[in-house]
Amino acid sequence: MTETINQTPTRTRTNDARLRQRARAVIPGGMYGHMSANALPPEYPQFYQRSEGSHVWDVDGNEYVDFMCSFGPIILGHKHPKVEAAAAAQLADGDTQAGPAACMVEAAELLVDRVAHADWAMFAKNGTDATTTCLTIARAATGRAKVLAAAGAYHGAAPWCTLRMDGVTPEDRANIAYYTFNDIASVRRALDEAGGAAAAIIVSPFKHDAGFDEEMVDPQFARELRALCDRTGAALIMDEVRTGFRLHDGGSWEPIGVAPDLSAWSKAIANGYPIAAILGSAAFSEAASSIFVTGSFWFQAVPMAAAVATITAIREEGAVAAMQRTGTMLRDGIERQAAEAGVQISLTGPPAMPNLKFPADEDLAKGKAFCGTVVEHGVIIHPRHNWFLSAAHTDRDVERALEATWAGFQAVRARFGED
Amino acid sequence: MTETINQTPTRTRTNDARLRQRARAVIPGGMYGHMSANALPPEYPQFYQRSEGSHVWDVDGNEYVDFMCSFGPIILGHKHPKVEAAAAAQLADGDTQAGPAACMVEAAELLVDRVAHADWAMFAKNGTDATTTCLTIARAATGRAKVLAAAGAYHGAAPWCTLRMDGVTPEDRANIAYYTFNDIASVRRALDEAGGAAAAIIVSPFKHDAGFDEEMVDPQFARELRALCDRTGAALIMDEVRTGFRLHDGGSWEPIGVAPDLSAWSKAIANGYPIAAILGSAAFSEAASSIFVTGSFWFQAVPMAAAVATITAIREEGAVAAMQRTGTMLRDGIERQAAEAGVQISLTGPPAMPNLKFPADEDLAKGKAFCGTVVEHGVIIHPRHNWFLSAAHTDRDVERALEATWAGFQAVRARFGED
Repeated sequence: MTETINQTPTRTRTNDARLRQRARAVIPGGMYGHMSANALPPEYPQFYQRSEGSHVWDVDGNEYVDFMCSFGPIILGHKHPKVEAAAAAQLADGDTQAGPAACMVEAAELLVDRVAHADWAMFAKNGTDATTTCLTIARAATGRAKVLAAAGAYHGAAPWCTLRMDGVTPEDRANIAYYTFNDIASVRRALDEAGGAAAAIIVSPFKHDAGFDEEMVDPQFARELRALCDRTGAALIMDEVRTGFRLHDGGSWEPIGVAPDLSAWSKAIANGYPIAAILGSAAFSEAASSIFVTGSFWFQAVPMAAAVATITAIREEGAVAAMQRTGTMLRDGIERQAAEAGVQISLTGPPAMPNLKFPADEDLAKGKAFCGTVVEHGVIIHPRHNWFLSAAHTDRDVERALEATWAGFQAVRARFGED
Repeated sequence: MTETINQTPTRTRTNDARLRQRARAVIPGGMYGHMSANALPPEYPQFYQRSEGSHVWDVDGNEYVDFMCSFGPIILGHKHPKVEAAAAAQLADGDTQAGPAACMVEAAELLVDRVAHADWAMFAKNGTDATTTCLTIARAATGRAKVLAAAGAYHGAAPWCTLRMDGVTPEDRANIAYYTFNDIASVRRALDEAGGAAAAIIVSPFKHDAGFDEEMVDPQFARELRALCDRTGAALIMDEVRTGFRLHDGGSWEPIGVAPDLSAWSKAIANGYPIAAILGSAAFSEAASSIFVTGSFWFQAVPMAAAVATITAIREEGAVAAMQRTGTMLRDGIERQAAEAGVQISLTGPPAMPNLKFPADEDLAKGKAFCGTVVEHGVIIHPRHNWFLSAAHTDRDVERALEATWAGFQAVRARFGED
């Protein structure tokens, strides 16, 4: 690991370039959303050919160890045999049918069994569907409109919460007030400004805003948030969309003993099959049944069968411990390399969802130089967004990642000098 | 057909009853959304086992000819060989990957080829994603907030458009103004009330509000709507979510020569695989690339591969003409039966998406008696929502439907007498 890797592999990108050109003619900007490579270094492919376990191949046949896991959905590795078998069996029967299949009830029962605060479940498609539905249920239950959210937190891409204000009206945000994560005084202030009462306070299990250091929750903050909700009658909504089942095989705050009233899930719960879930406590069941939310594909059976298999495998195969172990190996290795290379880094967050920043790197110049080199060496990570471990990552995958990150640190040092 | 069918088939429903009981313990109200059987006659199953072509089987093994097509998504019949082959091939490569697959570009190119007004495409999951994104693009393009929508029209289940106001705040609707479908004077009035300018006018190709007679668009209304948008700078948004590719294998207003600026698609474009699309003209491309919308599963490859196969097959197999033909057979048969039975009905809408109402049946007592009997005779239709034909429906399916509807009319006459 102390040896500099000078030799940059040469990866062909002609198919990707051709597809990008065709895409620019028929897709605004050529691509959009969180998977757009437009703002990423040129070493990143935009289009992918296939995926297997912890590895992905781009449209030019280049192989990568993938530490983004499709931005979260892949938690057991691509094509996990039990998940694929369950999905295939359900698909052979039916998927988008005249109504739900029996596996809808099984998926709801399993989530209620696994997530301590949950007495019931509803299903949707997008994480945004789940967070938005939690707000609607809280408003129906309380008769109030205001919702408190942490400034800068990502809760989806609907007008009330999307990252950019283009096309968003002031009215879309009129009922959202903002507090600072881990700062209970800021919550009290926001609550006071909202007239002392809110429909809900929405919070992520830890702070994972793209472009910023991650910050674990202060257990005292979590407990005071719960107490504040109890005192004022606001629903405590936990946004588990990104975190769900990566920190714990139940709710993410169960280890610290704080239960939300409602929680929003998606991404990892069916190992890549499209599903979201809204979980809630009994007190919110009546409000949940009073609202009207639905979607043409919300009762698709295949993702529900995949969810049952995924959630079962997460516990049976010790996925959380596995991600914790390989994530720790990766983190420790990167920290050793940074020290050895004389490059300052800020590596934050839980081992299964690490985030790497270079201090004072506002334009991401260092981050992009680092990540571009890492991708060129066959490992997918991200310069702004947290990475994701899956239970399919092996020691050898981590070793390959560390070969690539070592090359990345050399590139940063060559271009920016030692810190 | 003139003979009364007295003998009611006895269909076992024990598995369905058991699942409903389990569901009530873990799902608010036991079920929610458009596929809930809670408000339907007791003859309807809630849970389904499998689907094939135009037929579905409930969890007790009862077979039905399905004239709801999963509320629209199934347009070629369940398990269309070419769609399933395309989906399976893509699934073998990868589905929710590190980025989109090449088929995203192919799907965008195909939609741009088929839909006359479209110069570009974006993809999402829900119909609601597509309609909401159209509004956001129109607002980003115009810098205006107000959107005009037809009173009573269904454009999705987000707070700005959902059917019930539980949990919806006044601010969610503050920028929506309402006009009457096919009444251009009402559009002008709504526009005047909005200060003479709006970001967009959203319209469905025809009026298909659940619980009401369907109403085809007056071509003059469509043309004047287009002219009004041109004069005021509002975007004309067409909601094709329910109608798309059932009336025409391009945009639904192409036969009358009126082009929208933006259109929202979902349901039938991938024959049951979960996808939505936003299509737009070149003038709105820059605004479309300025907004931030995304979702964890929006770049799933399998539904895009299925969309390419579905849209191709719709034209190659003459799906629109097939639905028109069998839908006309069904409509003519039902009208003959109603006259013969001496029961007044209102059967409206295009043959591929008919809607049946009994006049002065506000509590749906006749509709439910009719539909309950029809379901008991092995045919799925709906007492409030329009039905859907697919290209898989055969003459024999229509004959079976007419046997069931004849029994339905006998049940209505037996219970309510002749009109």
